[in-house]
Amino acid sequence: MSELLQEIEDIRSWISSFGSDDLGGVSRLLYSESWLEVQKALKKKFEELGMEASFDEIGNLYGKIIGTDNGNETIATGSHVDTVVNGGQLDGQLGIIGGYLAIKRLLEAHGKPKKNIEIISLAEEEGSRFPYVFWGSKNLFGIADKKDVENIEDANGIGFVDAMHQCGFDFKKDNSCSIPDVKAFVELHIEQGNTLEMEGISVGVISGIVGQRRYNIKLKGEANHAGTTLMKYRKDVTQVFAKIVTESIEKAKKVGDPLVLTFGKILVKPNTVNVVPGDAMFTMDCRHTDKEVLCKFTEEIEELMKQAAEESSVEIEIDRWMDEDPVPMDSNITSVIENACKKNNIDYKIMHSGAGHDSQIIAPRIPTAMIFVPSIKGISHNPAEDTKTEDLNKGIETLKASLYELAY
Amino acid sequence: MSELLQEIEDIRSWISSFGSDDLGGVSRLLYSESWLEVQKALKKKFEELGMEASFDEIGNLYGKIIGTDNGNETIATGSHVDTVVNGGQLDGQLGIIGGYLAIKRLLEAHGKPKKNIEIISLAEEEGSRFPYVFWGSKNLFGIADKKDVENIEDANGIGFVDAMHQCGFDFKKDNSCSIPDVKAFVELHIEQGNTLEMEGISVGVISGIVGQRRYNIKLKGEANHAGTTLMKYRKDVTQVFAKIVTESIEKAKKVGDPLVLTFGKILVKPNTVNVVPGDAMFTMDCRHTDKEVLCKFTEEIEELMKQAAEESSVEIEIDRWMDEDPVPMDSNITSVIENACKKNNIDYKIMHSGAGHDSQIIAPRIPTAMIFVPSIKGISHNPAEDTKTEDLNKGIETLKASLYELAY
Repeated sequence: MSELLQEIEDIRSWISSFGSDDLGGVSRLLYSESWLEVQKALKKKFEELGMEASFDEIGNLYGKIIGTDNGNETIATGSHVDTVVNGGQLDGQLGIIGGYLAIKRLLEAHGKPKKNIEIISLAEEEGSRFPYVFWGSKNLFGIADKKDVENIEDANGIGFVDAMHQCGFDFKKDNSCSIPDVKAFVELHIEQGNTLEMEGISVGVISGIVGQRRYNIKLKGEANHAGTTLMKYRKDVTQVFAKIVTESIEKAKKVGDPLVLTFGKILVKPNTVNVVPGDAMFTMDCRHTDKEVLCKFTEEIEELMKQAAEESSVEIEIDRWMDEDPVPMDSNITSVIENACKKNNIDYKIMHSGAGHDSQIIAPRIPTAMIFVPSIKGISHNPAEDTKTEDLNKGIETLKASLYELAY
Repeated sequence: MSELLQEIEDIRSWISSFGSDDLGGVSRLLYSESWLEVQKALKKKFEELGMEASFDEIGNLYGKIIGTDNGNETIATGSHVDTVVNGGQLDGQLGIIGGYLAIKRLLEAHGKPKKNIEIISLAEEEGSRFPYVFWGSKNLFGIADKKDVENIEDANGIGFVDAMHQCGFDFKKDNSCSIPDVKAFVELHIEQGNTLEMEGISVGVISGIVGQRRYNIKLKGEANHAGTTLMKYRKDVTQVFAKIVTESIEKAKKVGDPLVLTFGKILVKPNTVNVVPGDAMFTMDCRHTDKEVLCKFTEEIEELMKQAAEESSVEIEIDRWMDEDPVPMDSNITSVIENACKKNNIDYKIMHSGAGHDSQIIAPRIPTAMIFVPSIKGISHNPAEDTKTEDLNKGIETLKASLYELAY
């Protein structure tokens, strides 16, 4: 293994040791002991590279190389430092260690940049300890509402605010932007899907993040004896569920990529072999990069669901509890990344992200784009989450070349 | 309310007081305290009517009116005395109290019969305390295998044999038939379905009990991120399940009554909104009165399931764990019942039973048939289980007239 690749492996092992769990994964939740340790260790590492490093009020960590211009323009990179419970070694933290290595390589090859280059280790994105997501990125812009976290607790009943105080952090004093000098943001992340792998490509240049709508749907029919109730007298909710799934997925496939439609959860009652199910609750998750397509499609499915229920004399309740618009990335920044790939002979693909990322909070406020590297078998949020070291290196090289273009 | 109807209500309340539970239902499980109490109370009641009453080794209770022929031919009726957990006031015990009242009315109207008339309060049918069904009826013929119950326990870890001994009962000494003198058996039971109610008919004359096949089916696909996995790269088990259900039910409806097909249980993993499900387990229950139709249909569905799985690159495991043949009732006895209805101007319908009953164990060994009365809304195995008193009376009158025809 070359020195460059070995360095990637070493820093990956190093950062993964903070919060490594008994199940071979990393469990590093917001404001936990290992979370505080890793942020402090990163601060030290950033300083050793010659960065000015500091925390903001809530615990986002910033490391900045001051550019030779001595100006007020900064190019930033980074991602979130928290993980899911029993997560892998790349989600989130790749954006931090990859950003660190890209800057280190730039400094070694080209010395100081003209503009400032900053790396941000965001406090939180996953929502895996407390029921709140994007705490880190929202606090960059003062858009995290205090009220939303004041009364929430983790699974052990520890309050959000207590945990925050325990680590020495507190709410922001006002709603000001913490990074008014940042003129561009580039986030390196694993794909968490299998498109790059299936197509044999090393780098994804992200043009946008999907919008998504999520639903809870309840069906109320009639629980009946499976032997004594003739088919014509049934109000079978499983039958209605199955019809909805079959017809909706058929329609989704007709619309084609990048539309994805998932019925991930289904609970029926009484859920026993010899009773026709009388109640069901299921979820639907639909995503697309185009808001209009997303809305039109899901509204068609809502109608289809109502009709399927009515045909079987089953009552239906459709609750659309998440409705997030797609977020386009900045075309100038994606061009910079694309050119960086071309110049360095890195095979790439323009694609969208089907998952949410910190960049979706940052992109509406600062020109932003993302770089993806392949996830082996598409696995993430799991100790088996992995990417070939060669691909990690190509992602870091792409980020390095992009930062060079933007800051040198 | 007439005296006859009042008597039905009174004896129904009386028997339901044994094992009445806090939830408004009856929970009278095999070899429990209330089970022993009711069997002892019934013995006394039978004796008070002039019957010779006795228990067999395992706890079936017999009450016999000796006929004037003093011969060795007996006409029997009865059903099971156990209930499901939180059951209603009619399933099983209607066959006992209805049989008792029919015999009482016969004795009052016509004096002693020529042949013996016997009522049997069978120990168990539901399998609701221990994982074993038809313990009562199988022991009539020495076909309950000791080995099948020796090591089974109830939910509290109490062994079947210990519970049996506790009540003063034990295994049969040999495999002999306990009722060699019984020449005909008629069982009165609630329908537990809604066919009679939907068609506005008071009595069902049962021509046969359905055969049934039950399956556990496992699907193994691939759990994937709901946002990042394009539709074409998915191995979505819910999609396969839905296709199987939709197509199978469509086929079942084409075959028509009395075929019933139920997908009562479905469990998917990880069962969360934003993950494409990678594993599923579901059940299929299929019933028909004709063995050939049942076998041909279910084997077609097995093929359909395999094909649906294969199309989506999902692995499938099909386990057919129950395969019971249909049991026809004796046509002579059904004719007797039919004629009884006609003579007494009772509206009736020849129909099958979609549920299992003690009669399916008895019918292959002794000429047997069943009488159904309507279940309000088809509800059973539930405290809301009910039948209009007028309909209960018509069922009892039908049984009375049938026993008269057979024994007088």
